[in-house]
Amino acid sequence: ADVGRLLVRCPDRPGIVAAVSGLLHAHGANIAQSDQYSTSLEGGTFLMRVVFHLEELGARRPALEAELAEVADRYAMRWTLHDAAVPKRAAILVSREDHCLMDLLWRHRRGELDLDVRLVASNHPDLGEDVGAFGLPFHHVPVTPGTKPQAEERLLELLAGEVDVVILARYMQILSGDLLTRLGVPVINIHHSFLPAFVGANPYARARDRGVKLVGATAHYVTEELDAGPIIEQDVARVSHRDDVPALVAVGRDIERTVLARAVAWHAADRVIVHDGTTVVL
Amino acid sequence: ADVGRLLVRCPDRPGIVAAVSGLLHAHGANIAQSDQYSTSLEGGTFLMRVVFHLEELGARRPALEAELAEVADRYAMRWTLHDAAVPKRAAILVSREDHCLMDLLWRHRRGELDLDVRLVASNHPDLGEDVGAFGLPFHHVPVTPGTKPQAEERLLELLAGEVDVVILARYMQILSGDLLTRLGVPVINIHHSFLPAFVGANPYARARDRGVKLVGATAHYVTEELDAGPIIEQDVARVSHRDDVPALVAVGRDIERTVLARAVAWHAADRVIVHDGTTVVL
Amino acid sequence: ADVGRLLVRCPDRPGIVAAVSGLLHAHGANIAQSDQYSTSLEGGTFLMRVVFHLEELGARRPALEAELAEVADRYAMRWTLHDAAVPKRAAILVSREDHCLMDLLWRHRRGELDLDVRLVASNHPDLGEDVGAFGLPFHHVPVTPGTKPQAEERLLELLAGEVDVVILARYMQILSGDLLTRLGVPVINIHHSFLPAFVGANPYARARDRGVKLVGATAHYVTEELDAGPIIEQDVARVSHRDDVPALVAVGRDIERTVLARAVAWHAADRVIVHDGTTVVL
Amino acid sequence: ADVGRLLVRCPDRPGIVAAVSGLLHAHGANIAQSDQYSTSLEGGTFLMRVVFHLEELGARRPALEAELAEVADRYAMRWTLHDAAVPKRAAILVSREDHCLMDLLWRHRRGELDLDVRLVASNHPDLGEDVGAFGLPFHHVPVTPGTKPQAEERLLELLAGEVDVVILARYMQILSGDLLTRLGVPVINIHHSFLPAFVGANPYARARDRGVKLVGATAHYVTEELDAGPIIEQDVARVSHRDDVPALVAVGRDIERTVLARAVAWHAADRVIVHDGTTVVL
Repeated sequence: ADVGRLLVRCPDRPGIVAAVSGLLHAHGANIAQSDQYSTSLEGGTFLMRVVFHLEELGARRPALEAELAEVADRYAMRWTLHDAAVPKRAAILVSREDHCLMDLLWRHRRGELDLDVRLVASNHPDLGEDVGAFGLPFHHVPVTPGTKPQAEERLLELLAGEVDVVILARYMQILSGDLLTRLGVPVINIHHSFLPAFVGANPYARARDRGVKLVGATAHYVTEELDAGPIIEQDVARVSHRDDVPALVAVGRDIERTVLARAVAWHAADRVIVHDGTTVVL
Repeated sequence: ADVGRLLVRCPDRPGIVAAVSGLLHAHGANIAQSDQYSTSLEGGTFLMRVVFHLEELGARRPALEAELAEVADRYAMRWTLHDAAVPKRAAILVSREDHCLMDLLWRHRRGELDLDVRLVASNHPDLGEDVGAFGLPFHHVPVTPGTKPQAEERLLELLAGEVDVVILARYMQILSGDLLTRLGVPVINIHHSFLPAFVGANPYARARDRGVKLVGATAHYVTEELDAGPIIEQDVARVSHRDDVPALVAVGRDIERTVLARAVAWHAADRVIVHDGTTVVL
Repeated sequence: ADVGRLLVRCPDRPGIVAAVSGLLHAHGANIAQSDQYSTSLEGGTFLMRVVFHLEELGARRPALEAELAEVADRYAMRWTLHDAAVPKRAAILVSREDHCLMDLLWRHRRGELDLDVRLVASNHPDLGEDVGAFGLPFHHVPVTPGTKPQAEERLLELLAGEVDVVILARYMQILSGDLLTRLGVPVINIHHSFLPAFVGANPYARARDRGVKLVGATAHYVTEELDAGPIIEQDVARVSHRDDVPALVAVGRDIERTVLARAVAWHAADRVIVHDGTTVVL
Repeated sequence: ADVGRLLVRCPDRPGIVAAVSGLLHAHGANIAQSDQYSTSLEGGTFLMRVVFHLEELGARRPALEAELAEVADRYAMRWTLHDAAVPKRAAILVSREDHCLMDLLWRHRRGELDLDVRLVASNHPDLGEDVGAFGLPFHHVPVTPGTKPQAEERLLELLAGEVDVVILARYMQILSGDLLTRLGVPVINIHHSFLPAFVGANPYARARDRGVKLVGATAHYVTEELDAGPIIEQDVARVSHRDDVPALVAVGRDIERTVLARAVAWHAADRVIVHDGTTVVL
């Protein structure tokens, strides 16, 4: 059977689950998984993700959406419906560090990431050959302090309207608020520290100076404020005084690629809902 | 509002969520959390846990149960309904090792465990004073190879009909199948290894001999077959060649008490469903 | 045999290990464990911890120390020699949260912490009975904004010269620089976040607001600058959007007590060397 | 300066550290790191790993070795001396699963593994192109039940005398005792379970049946007895009832590649000593 995913967000009040599940049942859908969350017991926001099986989802979708729109009206609901058979189109941006990129491309080839990777772009030419080996287009978009606006225009040509999500796999350039707005799709970044510790540059060197016993990585949606967007996933690894900065960087690579891969997989499966500056992963 | 928890188990087919959520809504309940799981896409078993708010749950419960019984008939459903305001009555059995017992009693005193601990029983008198300090009754029920049947009779007098769950907090006696049957309530045990590795006695010494790099603990429901019951929770900690057997035992204590506490808390909150020799924690 | 522990710190240069191990061998000591660390390959600081067995360490200690002083002169070495048979005298300061205190006292009773706990002091009377149950003196030293200097004087009477280490087991008062100086012994604190994230008050509420996916705890030596002292140990636990602030606090308790217990045990075993604002745990 | 690594193993008795460090000092070496371990306080085995800096190690090695042989005689010592500038020659054997192989090759290219990878061999042709992209020779050595002896002969031609270590990166063939003997070098395998749980085939399916809450992987030296060789490294990841067998396999891939990479890196750095059926990682 085809698989649909319905994400719902509305003010909490009794009857939402009954309304949605009743509607799906009436259309012949079988609920395979359903997760919900209320931000507070009284007057909170209700968030729900429902995965259902429905024969001929594509054909039945318009009728389903029409009725969903009615229910949504009644409950002041915001909703999105996703067909699991249609993977999101993705672009990956990278600079010179290859570990996050390679890891995503391997997982993609192995079928672990439900994404349609359309292209890789980089401000350096170094990784073009590696990307080519996976049969994917690689675009070199150089960025200098003087050419940043032009570079962003070039990125917009490549990405705007062409992809549903952009992944920054250690892309060492800050995207302008203007670019983010015009892009209009979620951008996922991997930051090489356990945010909010060590916001900004050189987190491993600063972690070393502070003598922390764990280093971490954080995948988050990009917002205009640097390293302050909603966190999707984080993890850490144990280190010791024996680990100098290059050793911390090496340990960090493993965390970074794992954390980014999890965040991307969850986003691809419509499991992440942004709410109030944070995320709910259902 | 009062809080109810409904656990449901039945053959999977379309409409179950709609039926249950519709019924709850009709009775004025607001679903706060709902988790479900199907053991397979086709012909599997459907498991669901619903937490709902309902004013005057106690008074409305009979009417709710009557309708639930009808729906249950239609879907060949097995269900239990729990009032969160009524904590389960529990007994803890222990031998000489105090770490799991003390940890449970502290958490209980702190309000972390939603249980009504009625008594502690032990085959040794050693921990009586510690238990007394928490204001709980302590029963010394000695067990020798010759007196095991009498000891089990004594335990049944203390426990059968008096408690809803029995917790073996490093109780170093094997409970007979007869005792388990006559007890008629779930029994949770903590085993000091990462099962199925090191079933049976002296797991830490055997872990040391085998040179494992992690030691673990497993909380499980007790069945007649030793260390083979459904696993509720497991965890591990890193060890090295420097850890001799006493060091492994010390590391293990921390894992044991944590794993047992989690399993007990989940059981107390009606989050654990046994299915096909394993557990589903919703 | 008696066990000695020698801690050494000096500018790195060839021959240090040979000099120290040769000296110990000449005195009949057998090295059981030895760890060393150089802060950099060229011109760094050399740190070493040696554990050795030596019959009649007490009697032989003066001769050993005399020769050590000579070697130390040659290598510009700072060193301390500890007899493992003489546990450090400790005081624990606590406010109202009992989990770290109870855990330390229980581990102490178990023999897991090689400390001579002399007393517990608190700015609240609440935990007096619990401490009494362990047979330890409890001192209530109230602190109000107006009486802080007097309270610190009272603490100094209790502690200065009486203990070798002070443990802040969730003691919710800031110790003045004057107190720290006059105390003259290491003070270990447990902070309820993964420092340097969430320095200061209410870390769990701030972690919730920021939407982090892990919460942590940090044990560190206290310096005059708040939450900035050398980190001894850290750990984290996974949380999710479902965990509200009280749930984070509950999860945090387990991390706090574990991290503090490890830091205290390492300090008690002379395993922690402070160097350049961080620690080296050997 | 050049870097040497000295591994020592002998019956424990006083003076070993002094003898070895004195000798190294006399030859002008500066000890950068030294770790030792005694299997028991009385009558145990002493194991030591010393990393030292010595100008012109290559030229001075014969003189150093001659004196080491003398000291070794005195202490019944077995020792090996390694020049860090000479990486071990390695072969990787693989079947169809690419994740461990790709991870090793990528780390190798990154400079994270101090190995000289000479070739990859496989009983399937599938991964030839991937290996070629790294500029390494790939040998297809098919194995059928009838041709196993010939296949092992072919492997011996490729490997015996040509490599210092063989890495089984999910090679799904059992190596005969005869092959192991004639190969004469350590063979490292990655097993896809937390040994000794789930020895043998299909560990993830069996883990699923048993309802474990963690899955793991184990890197070990290969001995004739299946999955029973000395364990080098293990790790686990949390899973739940929601993870079906393919999901466990996907989670497992990440653990397998990480655990194997650690084991290989430690072996490459002469950090693993086999002792009494287990390993000591110094």
